[in-house]
Amino acid sequence: VVAGIRTPLKIEQLAQDMPEVYAEFAAIAQRLEQHYRDVQDLEFTVEKGKLYMLQTRSAKRTAAAAVKIAVDMQADGLITKEEAVQRVEPGQVVQLLLPRFDPQAKADAEAAGRFLAKGLNASPGAAYGKAVFDADTAEAQVKADASARVVLVRPETSPDDVHGMLVAKGILTARGGATSHAAVVARGLGLPCVAGTEDIRVDEEGKFLTVIKTGQTLREGDDISIDGSTGEVFAGIIPVVEPNYDEETDLRTILGWADDIRRLGVWANADIPADAERAVKYGAEGIGLCRTEHMFFEKTRLPVVRRMILAPTLSERQAALDELLPIQQADFAGLFRAMRDPQSGEAYPVVIRLIDPPLHEFLPSYEELLVEVTHLEDAGNAPEELAEKRALLQAVAAMREANPMLGLRGCRLGLLYPEINVMQTRAILGAAVDVAAEGISAKPKIMIPLVGFVTELAEVRRQLEAAAADVVQSSGKTVDYKFGTMIELPRAALTAGQIAGVAEFFSFGTNDLTQTTLGMSRDDAEGKFLLRYVDGLPKLDVNGTPFKDADGKAELVKILKVNPFQTIDREGVGRLVEIAVREGRATNAELEVGVCGEHGGDPESVAFFESVGLDYVSCSPFRVPVARLAAAQAKLAGEVRDK
Amino acid sequence: VVAGIRTPLKIEQLAQDMPEVYAEFAAIAQRLEQHYRDVQDLEFTVEKGKLYMLQTRSAKRTAAAAVKIAVDMQADGLITKEEAVQRVEPGQVVQLLLPRFDPQAKADAEAAGRFLAKGLNASPGAAYGKAVFDADTAEAQVKADASARVVLVRPETSPDDVHGMLVAKGILTARGGATSHAAVVARGLGLPCVAGTEDIRVDEEGKFLTVIKTGQTLREGDDISIDGSTGEVFAGIIPVVEPNYDEETDLRTILGWADDIRRLGVWANADIPADAERAVKYGAEGIGLCRTEHMFFEKTRLPVVRRMILAPTLSERQAALDELLPIQQADFAGLFRAMRDPQSGEAYPVVIRLIDPPLHEFLPSYEELLVEVTHLEDAGNAPEELAEKRALLQAVAAMREANPMLGLRGCRLGLLYPEINVMQTRAILGAAVDVAAEGISAKPKIMIPLVGFVTELAEVRRQLEAAAADVVQSSGKTVDYKFGTMIELPRAALTAGQIAGVAEFFSFGTNDLTQTTLGMSRDDAEGKFLLRYVDGLPKLDVNGTPFKDADGKAELVKILKVNPFQTIDREGVGRLVEIAVREGRATNAELEVGVCGEHGGDPESVAFFESVGLDYVSCSPFRVPVARLAAAQAKLAGEVRDK
Repeated sequence: VVAGIRTPLKIEQLAQDMPEVYAEFAAIAQRLEQHYRDVQDLEFTVEKGKLYMLQTRSAKRTAAAAVKIAVDMQADGLITKEEAVQRVEPGQVVQLLLPRFDPQAKADAEAAGRFLAKGLNASPGAAYGKAVFDADTAEAQVKADASARVVLVRPETSPDDVHGMLVAKGILTARGGATSHAAVVARGLGLPCVAGTEDIRVDEEGKFLTVIKTGQTLREGDDISIDGSTGEVFAGIIPVVEPNYDEETDLRTILGWADDIRRLGVWANADIPADAERAVKYGAEGIGLCRTEHMFFEKTRLPVVRRMILAPTLSERQAALDELLPIQQADFAGLFRAMRDPQSGEAYPVVIRLIDPPLHEFLPSYEELLVEVTHLEDAGNAPEELAEKRALLQAVAAMREANPMLGLRGCRLGLLYPEINVMQTRAILGAAVDVAAEGISAKPKIMIPLVGFVTELAEVRRQLEAAAADVVQSSGKTVDYKFGTMIELPRAALTAGQIAGVAEFFSFGTNDLTQTTLGMSRDDAEGKFLLRYVDGLPKLDVNGTPFKDADGKAELVKILKVNPFQTIDREGVGRLVEIAVREGRATNAELEVGVCGEHGGDPESVAFFESVGLDYVSCSPFRVPVARLAAAQAKLAGEVRDK
Repeated sequence: VVAGIRTPLKIEQLAQDMPEVYAEFAAIAQRLEQHYRDVQDLEFTVEKGKLYMLQTRSAKRTAAAAVKIAVDMQADGLITKEEAVQRVEPGQVVQLLLPRFDPQAKADAEAAGRFLAKGLNASPGAAYGKAVFDADTAEAQVKADASARVVLVRPETSPDDVHGMLVAKGILTARGGATSHAAVVARGLGLPCVAGTEDIRVDEEGKFLTVIKTGQTLREGDDISIDGSTGEVFAGIIPVVEPNYDEETDLRTILGWADDIRRLGVWANADIPADAERAVKYGAEGIGLCRTEHMFFEKTRLPVVRRMILAPTLSERQAALDELLPIQQADFAGLFRAMRDPQSGEAYPVVIRLIDPPLHEFLPSYEELLVEVTHLEDAGNAPEELAEKRALLQAVAAMREANPMLGLRGCRLGLLYPEINVMQTRAILGAAVDVAAEGISAKPKIMIPLVGFVTELAEVRRQLEAAAADVVQSSGKTVDYKFGTMIELPRAALTAGQIAGVAEFFSFGTNDLTQTTLGMSRDDAEGKFLLRYVDGLPKLDVNGTPFKDADGKAELVKILKVNPFQTIDREGVGRLVEIAVREGRATNAELEVGVCGEHGGDPESVAFFESVGLDYVSCSPFRVPVARLAAAQAKLAGEVRDK
């Protein structure tokens, strides 16, 4: 039964047919599992009544099985808690916590005959949306309506499809395996993908798909649902549900053990109380990044923010800021209330980053205004509206930037408009005073973004300590707060020894640090060349003819192994992180050091952060369980290495 | 005569009135000048027939005097050539080589009574243009017509004027000294500036200036000429002339000595043969940067370049490239013919950078197209033109980028469109073969921009060596070329040890390296906050009230001492340069290392490049003499330090 030509018999058959052989096999199996201390995948054969063991290896298992086996084996005394923690892959935790089809809705869909086909589970998670058969249409639909949900359906994908993949909720292809373009890119984007669905035929021209066996068809705009964790494809919408973490008892057991093992703190990035509550539920011990400007984008607040930005005088700007102060203060109080240890009730730290994005991000789009003004000019019938729009266009034009990521943002804003920073500081300290009156303690940490020079930070700190002193004086309460900075520019990392003289904590903003160190704007790079670097470029001769391998397949040149925005680039960005940690701590031994870029939730990156001795990682609430497990595994791997 | 209350008498008067005292004075003066080996500024007094020497110090002198004195003193045996070289400040060389008024035209203007006033010579160089009295108008005029020449005239300048200063040919202010905002910013921008012209009154509202003594007025749009080297202001246009380097005999003598002393090579950045010839005249020993794309912007070529970019198929793109090939080849041949040692005729190296800017820079402006399409839509009378413009708009939209500096450019282009790189390589090698047929040897060096990963460079090198081999084979001639890369991303510097395994030379692109390391887009930063950082920000209390010093003047907080785009930031960018030089040479001991950013012509930066052991600096042709002197001084300073 080795060659796989015959369908193997069930093991119960053996017990019935050859009880002695079965007993021998069971004993061997038990010994092997005890020896390897893991569930084994055994190959054997029986020839003329004699048992031959052919091969044994650790069995492949689903995410749920991996967690259950690890907990059970620890309970049976076969493995230690440390071993149990190492038996679960961080990616499996991701799978357990990804959105999945609502089970009842899925059962209904099956009963209603809406199951279409099963392909390869190429990138986990469930998604639904309108079927779209080319990338341009996908892009156009989402551009026209940002809330549009599309699932991109292709025979297979190529780099020309990436702009459509970037806006899709999920990807379905008829051809290609786990390392096909669609699969690699989708995993890179964290997007559900079912690939190689050989049972369907995709007609690009006609814009429809056909299920080969049944002849069922789905046309452009028809609803479709896919599950990248199972490979299933359904017609119509199957609503997706968030997994219920509270019911994942085994997972919570494993993660509890991981908490006992890990050295790294695990915090979360959260801007609003609901996110903070979810973060605490998933085990976060602090907020590593609260982006205060996200509060500015709310519909009722945006007009006030715009008034503040466009104010022609300082007093008008101050009036708008005075309106924003109580709103921000209430937001921060909500975060402080949520961020407490669920057992002890003690305050968790909350790192609040002062305003970061360029102010023009809060204003209407230049291009839209330009079109409106042009229409009004052509119509010539609304001179007042035209004058008003023109004035706004001019104001927006004056603030536009060639490269906004590298422009007037971060601490540069606070240095030119200190009144914004002062308002935010008053709101943070004021919120701490407010919750103290409710008997709730708070641990605010004020974080300054995009610092490149210690002189920038020193001046901001001077201003903000004055504002803090003002709140303390007028309220009569003291507030325990800390003052620190993001390290997200190469220069900040290279001069961390100076900066640590003014900062009480560092938080590595590895998203921006990756953008500047690599000279890649993520918005532009991923769509235009970066995913192709990971995917591999065709190897061409001098006339543009592709080289082919022995099988006639076009050879590819891989420029990058992984997307550096997903897994930290150790040699470049990582080297800067190492320099900054070492030289920052040399200046200030008390310096607290964390990371709040997306890398904080990536297991490979977490291993790196453990190795350079960060104090904590902070990631999106959904990645907190992954980070807890990865931090424990990194600690254990470090101990093995150190032996 | 010490207090400066009385007007001193001429020295000849002393010889006549008190011959003994004069003889004694002359002897003392000679001893002092021999002792200090420099021209002295002596203060003395005569009381009751007795000479009292009060003070002696090295005399201040004009640029021309400094050079003449140094050469004369060496001829007199008072100082060595090394000392002579140290007696001239690099800034004085700049002054001697800046554009100045045409002397005849200036004499005519004086004779015609067009001299208006004399202010402070705040930033050297001469300029003419239309007088404009506010920054917005200056900006609007230059936006409307890029060839417009405006001189910004202000009572004094503030940060709100910077956007106008950025587009002006010169600055004139009525108030403020050598460290006023106008003076500091103008020197920062290398822009002629006459400041503190107390004899004129500037009426902002009325948009005119009045010469107080004469009552003459100049209104907005009137021509005006200023000389920032002398402080003179004239009505009307006085044409400016380039200085005649050949006639600057003393300067050439000093620079000849500098050449004997310096270790650093001095090369120039030049894109066309005329620039290359000027560079050789000024003493450049190579081209450190030829920007090939500048050739693409020429009017007759741009349509071909656009056809290449918008080509829907590879074969159409190849057809456009085939048209560009002979044109580029002829350009390169012109450079090779120009770049030879004027004495020996031997070839100087020519570093040619392959295409670098994002391709959308060659296409029509998105905003202009958007307005055109909107007009056509409103008119509704030209459906064909509308369809055509819409298609072009869509093509341009697809190529737009959020942050073009960090987008699809540099080697990323060549990796996605290798046919462009192949064409340029064929043109370079082909040009070398062409000039060889004329008996002229060439030393081309092919330079790849914006490399971040060694894998990028390795793949480009593979392609280009194949293209080079093709040229060699088809021509039957060998060409001596080298293959190297720019180091202009932090990651390239941090992984230079890897990259040097594939590159034969490095050239630091310190403009882009400064932009990425500091996270500052120069276009956005200088106008919006960087010059204010240098200038100083008002120190405010928590309520926005400025702190005042004892004299009631607002206190300023200086964030930066100098503009890092002018003088290299040693602690950040410089540290990366040091790392890259050290680790690059550790991998490849033969590695040639230079710099081709604007810092290559800045004396303080040249001193840094000497200290880290670069092989050469490359700067604009006009800065070559400055760099020659600065390189010699840096060498001498290093020798003193090493003792």
